[in-house]
Amino acid sequence: MDLMTAKFQRLGIDNAPGQEDRQSHTELELRGEPLPGPAVNFSHGDVDAHQPIPGSLETFIEGYKKGSCVAYTEYRGGDDIRKEVAAKLAAFTGAPIDPEKELILTPGTQGALFLALGCLVGRGDKVAIVEPDYFDNRKLVEFFEGELVPVKLDYLSQDKNAGVNLAALEESFKQGVKLFLYSNPNNPTGVIFSEEETREIARLAKKYNVILLVDQLYSRQIFDNHPYTHLRALPERPENMLTIMGPSKTESLSGFRLGTAFGTSWIIDRMEKLQAIVTLRAPGYSQYVFKRWFSEPEGWLKDRIAAHQAIRDDLIALVRSHEGCSVRKTEGGSYIFPTLPPMDVSISDFAKIVRRLTGVIITPGTEFGPQFTHSFRVNFSQDPKNTHSAIDRVLQVMERYRSK
Amino acid sequence: MDLMTAKFQRLGIDNAPGQEDRQSHTELELRGEPLPGPAVNFSHGDVDAHQPIPGSLETFIEGYKKGSCVAYTEYRGGDDIRKEVAAKLAAFTGAPIDPEKELILTPGTQGALFLALGCLVGRGDKVAIVEPDYFDNRKLVEFFEGELVPVKLDYLSQDKNAGVNLAALEESFKQGVKLFLYSNPNNPTGVIFSEEETREIARLAKKYNVILLVDQLYSRQIFDNHPYTHLRALPERPENMLTIMGPSKTESLSGFRLGTAFGTSWIIDRMEKLQAIVTLRAPGYSQYVFKRWFSEPEGWLKDRIAAHQAIRDDLIALVRSHEGCSVRKTEGGSYIFPTLPPMDVSISDFAKIVRRLTGVIITPGTEFGPQFTHSFRVNFSQDPKNTHSAIDRVLQVMERYRSK
Repeated sequence: MDLMTAKFQRLGIDNAPGQEDRQSHTELELRGEPLPGPAVNFSHGDVDAHQPIPGSLETFIEGYKKGSCVAYTEYRGGDDIRKEVAAKLAAFTGAPIDPEKELILTPGTQGALFLALGCLVGRGDKVAIVEPDYFDNRKLVEFFEGELVPVKLDYLSQDKNAGVNLAALEESFKQGVKLFLYSNPNNPTGVIFSEEETREIARLAKKYNVILLVDQLYSRQIFDNHPYTHLRALPERPENMLTIMGPSKTESLSGFRLGTAFGTSWIIDRMEKLQAIVTLRAPGYSQYVFKRWFSEPEGWLKDRIAAHQAIRDDLIALVRSHEGCSVRKTEGGSYIFPTLPPMDVSISDFAKIVRRLTGVIITPGTEFGPQFTHSFRVNFSQDPKNTHSAIDRVLQVMERYRSK
Repeated sequence: MDLMTAKFQRLGIDNAPGQEDRQSHTELELRGEPLPGPAVNFSHGDVDAHQPIPGSLETFIEGYKKGSCVAYTEYRGGDDIRKEVAAKLAAFTGAPIDPEKELILTPGTQGALFLALGCLVGRGDKVAIVEPDYFDNRKLVEFFEGELVPVKLDYLSQDKNAGVNLAALEESFKQGVKLFLYSNPNNPTGVIFSEEETREIARLAKKYNVILLVDQLYSRQIFDNHPYTHLRALPERPENMLTIMGPSKTESLSGFRLGTAFGTSWIIDRMEKLQAIVTLRAPGYSQYVFKRWFSEPEGWLKDRIAAHQAIRDDLIALVRSHEGCSVRKTEGGSYIFPTLPPMDVSISDFAKIVRRLTGVIITPGTEFGPQFTHSFRVNFSQDPKNTHSAIDRVLQVMERYRSK
């Protein structure tokens, strides 16, 4: 088998969220009758239940009507939009951003992650990632032929910290890691790195000259007023770092494909060069919609957080009511990542069985790290009248397959 | 210098179309007074002068209102849209397309090119490209560490053929080329490959087992009823090939970032895996706008072609009226690629000088191949009342720098 064939065999997407309709049919041992109820797709948020920021469509239309100057922007994004976005993100994160040099607009935060890794990771470069973390992080490292150095997140046994193993992280830095990439709040567990953890990550990165890539996609949707520390605003921060954010999740603007990366200018310069050959630019008219981001109506974000917090509380209690199930309470973002007791089927088959018996779609834990063979991820940004029944049925199916 | 630094130094975008505002200031010897007149940006088409397909915005709005099912599609694109697009492209190109297996929707045709090369070109793989051709083709090969094998297009001395050197092409295939990538109509010259040339390319690819990637971005905008041969519909076609098209140019839909690739299913499968980590999908709501593509109002395309043909005729005559200038008449697309007589300045400085003295933006020929030191590219999809004056002033500046 040639190199490319092998590489693409490793880039599996059969169990990836959103691809469930394309799964090839496999033989499954179905126990019991179907459990009817709402067919919730927990692989991504439901933008019908939690709508985009009010005025987003109208702002898109305004951009479209401006014509050529919005359709064709510089590869790093339109300069007026960059100025606005830089000012908003500087205020939110607590440290300045030069809109000319330190910010790029991308097609989704996925686009930002791809560009960042594409211009920082060459073959053999060591990249530290957290396990569990966003499922594409490991695939990106593999595509660019870097070497994955996993660092464990002990999220279930802690409550004050996210639980990142800082000793292991330092050891990986000593071994020559070039880049450390992590999401905060963490996807899929919803834990937030404490100030102490964040300061230590910054200090270690500076000490060992490691580039940091902090994915803060969910950093606006924080529950219970949990403290949140922006690494980029710390005095300990290293010279080379990027922060990634975008309006696709908390703000339900995913359909416009918008993201941003901001940080060290030489990295942004490289990302722009790469964007020039990847997609040229973030969609022109969509870029205009950034005008609504961080400019939501009074109270909008607060209501949004309250609505999600209520769903979270209900689902956490439901999961915990089953013996042998554990889950950490989400501190930020829209995910829960429950652990199930031993079952007679693999977690990927379990997900397929759940879909067949209930119509509910969940994402197997193994997408987030090979060791998560008893976990699944749920994006609970759904219609609240359906979430309880859907997870209840998932857990009923679990009971049918629980190992004796 | 490390590998990544060197790679990104080669990926220059300083002279790339659309990036002119970011050029660092260089010392230029300005001869004579400024030449006032309309400030035309010939680096891309003007979607204000030649508007998007009627109803495009309304269709986008319709997609937005459908919500989640349009915002989140499979990575290869929404299945309903794929069905429609596959049927239209099959009818246009004259050969069937399976919407499930043989088509992917991408963020622009740039996205399609990137995904195709990313899943076909590994380090050291030989890739044949035409010179001149779309400027990003060479950059893509360099990014993926392939080996460029340039094949000359003798576009100025022919008129029945595009002028591709078929003997050199066959020789490159004998030497182990894996992929041959070319645009038809050619960007930047506007020539169309004849049926004879197209059949021979197909035959050679089949004989030497070379993968073909045919960029047909401009294949709907054909002048003078020039014959056009779709390689994918020929009986000689090789087993492994892709065709790339999109509604960004002829249809002025660039601001929505839409493209497609269609062809051999294993290549489409790989592209989808790569898209999953690059941008996830083409922008969801934008995908809905594909419904307008190939469904334009009666006469719309004909009028569009006529309007562009009139601009072309005017500019071709203007260029040829200057001694020592030559240009081939565009057969398809919106570009001319004139050759200038020897000047006292390089073509990249000439482009900067033109901008300073006239406000007009042109793209230096060297973006399309290192040997095009006396050529420049013009996208003439502009407001017709400005194009004559703008190119006239460009040529007046040329006269000031003509070598004695």
